[in-house]
Amino acid sequence: MTHPLNPAMAATEAPPVMEARRWLQGVAFPADRPLINVSQAAPVEPPPLGLRQAIADAALTNDAAHLYGPVLGLPELRAEIAGQWSALYGGQIAPDQVAITQGCNQAFTAVMSTLAGAGDEVILPTPWYFNHKMWFDMQGVATIALDTGPTLIPDAEAARALITPRTRAIVLVSPNNPGGVEYPAETLAAFRDLCRAQGLALIVDETYRDFDSRHSVELGGRPHDLFDDPDWADTLIHLYSFSKAYRLTGHRVGAVVASAGRLAEVEKFLDTVAICPGQLGQIAALWGMRNLSQWVAGERDEILSRRRAMIEGFAQLEGWKLLGCGAYFAYVEHPFDLPSDQLCKRLVSEASLLMLPGTMFQPGGSEAGKRQIRIAFANVDAAGITELFHRLKAFRA
Amino acid sequence: MTHPLNPAMAATEAPPVMEARRWLQGVAFPADRPLINVSQAAPVEPPPLGLRQAIADAALTNDAAHLYGPVLGLPELRAEIAGQWSALYGGQIAPDQVAITQGCNQAFTAVMSTLAGAGDEVILPTPWYFNHKMWFDMQGVATIALDTGPTLIPDAEAARALITPRTRAIVLVSPNNPGGVEYPAETLAAFRDLCRAQGLALIVDETYRDFDSRHSVELGGRPHDLFDDPDWADTLIHLYSFSKAYRLTGHRVGAVVASAGRLAEVEKFLDTVAICPGQLGQIAALWGMRNLSQWVAGERDEILSRRRAMIEGFAQLEGWKLLGCGAYFAYVEHPFDLPSDQLCKRLVSEASLLMLPGTMFQPGGSEAGKRQIRIAFANVDAAGITELFHRLKAFRA
Repeated sequence: MTHPLNPAMAATEAPPVMEARRWLQGVAFPADRPLINVSQAAPVEPPPLGLRQAIADAALTNDAAHLYGPVLGLPELRAEIAGQWSALYGGQIAPDQVAITQGCNQAFTAVMSTLAGAGDEVILPTPWYFNHKMWFDMQGVATIALDTGPTLIPDAEAARALITPRTRAIVLVSPNNPGGVEYPAETLAAFRDLCRAQGLALIVDETYRDFDSRHSVELGGRPHDLFDDPDWADTLIHLYSFSKAYRLTGHRVGAVVASAGRLAEVEKFLDTVAICPGQLGQIAALWGMRNLSQWVAGERDEILSRRRAMIEGFAQLEGWKLLGCGAYFAYVEHPFDLPSDQLCKRLVSEASLLMLPGTMFQPGGSEAGKRQIRIAFANVDAAGITELFHRLKAFRA
Repeated sequence: MTHPLNPAMAATEAPPVMEARRWLQGVAFPADRPLINVSQAAPVEPPPLGLRQAIADAALTNDAAHLYGPVLGLPELRAEIAGQWSALYGGQIAPDQVAITQGCNQAFTAVMSTLAGAGDEVILPTPWYFNHKMWFDMQGVATIALDTGPTLIPDAEAARALITPRTRAIVLVSPNNPGGVEYPAETLAAFRDLCRAQGLALIVDETYRDFDSRHSVELGGRPHDLFDDPDWADTLIHLYSFSKAYRLTGHRVGAVVASAGRLAEVEKFLDTVAICPGQLGQIAALWGMRNLSQWVAGERDEILSRRRAMIEGFAQLEGWKLLGCGAYFAYVEHPFDLPSDQLCKRLVSEASLLMLPGTMFQPGGSEAGKRQIRIAFANVDAAGITELFHRLKAFRA
């Protein structure tokens, strides 16, 4: 018994990734069928040597790398982001419209704290990223689920019908976690227009932007034209993570792009929760932005080739339906008469596959969630993907 | 205008340290009177070379140092803390009763999230650490001020009178920020007994423990006997920071010691806000715990000699009254007919001294706050302290 306990925290579910890891405990995987872990969207290889060397050099020679920095992040990194992303998105982003956070989850919680408190509502398309839902639960913010249907693409008109006087924001993730779908630019523009008309904030989380199949970010493509709008800052709040592009998950570096006024509020949260982002991670992110464009392009090519393998594999796998595929994720409907959480546990012991069930990404009791599974395929190479499909084909529920 | 805006965030004051830094803008300090900045409790020198080398080595040779780790921290660090602190405090602390956070502010916010939400109350002695107050404000938690009078030592019986059905916890910081006072072991025990009897949590933040004048931590002393109690985990939640002892402020590493049940709730918050603590910071903290005991003892000796210089200086400074002095801080009453926030701004331009006014550590409108100033003296050497007193002596309001 843990007492006293905030009832909102008690009502918040335990972290799904940790729960899934517990499914592995006590399971002995056969030597000829080792575990394929496609549960978490995380690089499994370390960053390139040049970046590691840059971190080591800073640790040894840069005194400031060990000491407090500004709450909103290193000025050089904020300026680099403002410059590169203004060019990328074809818009105007100023350095004082950029803040650095200890990872993108922190960016999200900081931003949401400035928008919504207990009793407020936020619209979140389903399937959702579970940490977003967890934050709302522990804060007493009501999560209003926006069903995306079989396309996994949210519809702004459907969202309009969910708005009440308590609604504060709509949160979109593109490319989507867990759905893998890349939201069309028109979808994002429609949500921006809706939010602006209704006085809501639009949060767009682009953690997986660098692996978008439509756009070559380093070569001047852009996934949407939201920043083209000279008044973007009155409505749009943009989130980003350095974890995936440069394999920096262990350093916790994310970013917020928003109005300077919004960031003054974000600063209160970050001062209280973080004091400042870690310095070495920021130094690494800055080095990456200045040196790793070509390397990231190669990473994207590799992930896109794995994506093709996933699409081909599911096209030939009877009964399974691929709902979305992109960035790090395939999101699928399974053919079995078994809820996905039970199925995923059996896939661990019977097929040495660790995937997250749709129940973790949908509201409690959702029928869709019971049919769905997320596969974080980006870390599995071509041979591993072939093996994954062998095992799924052989599996009998 | 920032819209929509969570009214609780709007009502939260801006970070005091950032506000004080803004006082420096546009001020030209004379060459013969450079700024003495005693506003922030932060080391100004980097960590010792061995620790920097350990970080650099990990960056180059330890792949895991760049990737996600467990939400509650590296198992080796949790075990090291459990082992060393069990010995230090003469109690039983198990590894699963230890969690690592991205700094001690995050430890505090994580713990408080499991205890209190909007509408609840928490008792906080005054003067308080402003980030504690800011968290309560932005969460809609009512801060119940416990006046500590001229001794700055809180009284458990006075706290008892403030308890209501909405009270969830009492928060103590010892050695105190901003007060500098070291709470007697009997005070902490009395609060533990009160909290246990009333079903409240007792949070004890020992960020400045390593600089306690009474105890030589590395030599087996202990600042209190709270962990001596075999049932400590039913009431006590302990917070710590690695920032001060090893000069790791830029790496953001803190710790929580609490019941395993409490940490299962803390894990929800940390998964959602942090995912995991930074890896290099944790590696640095572990290296420090295993290699820097003697070095920290030397640091403590130096800070204690500066503390003596502060006590002697104020004894000879007419009109000023030293209320508390220890750890990083002197907390004083000034003799001028001027509110402390106005006084501190004048001290910047007229004496090149940056200190934080008591108004930042007391409830709005508090008469005590207008008379008080916090001086974070730990970073100023003997010559600097002499110069500081010359300037205070010469100052005329």
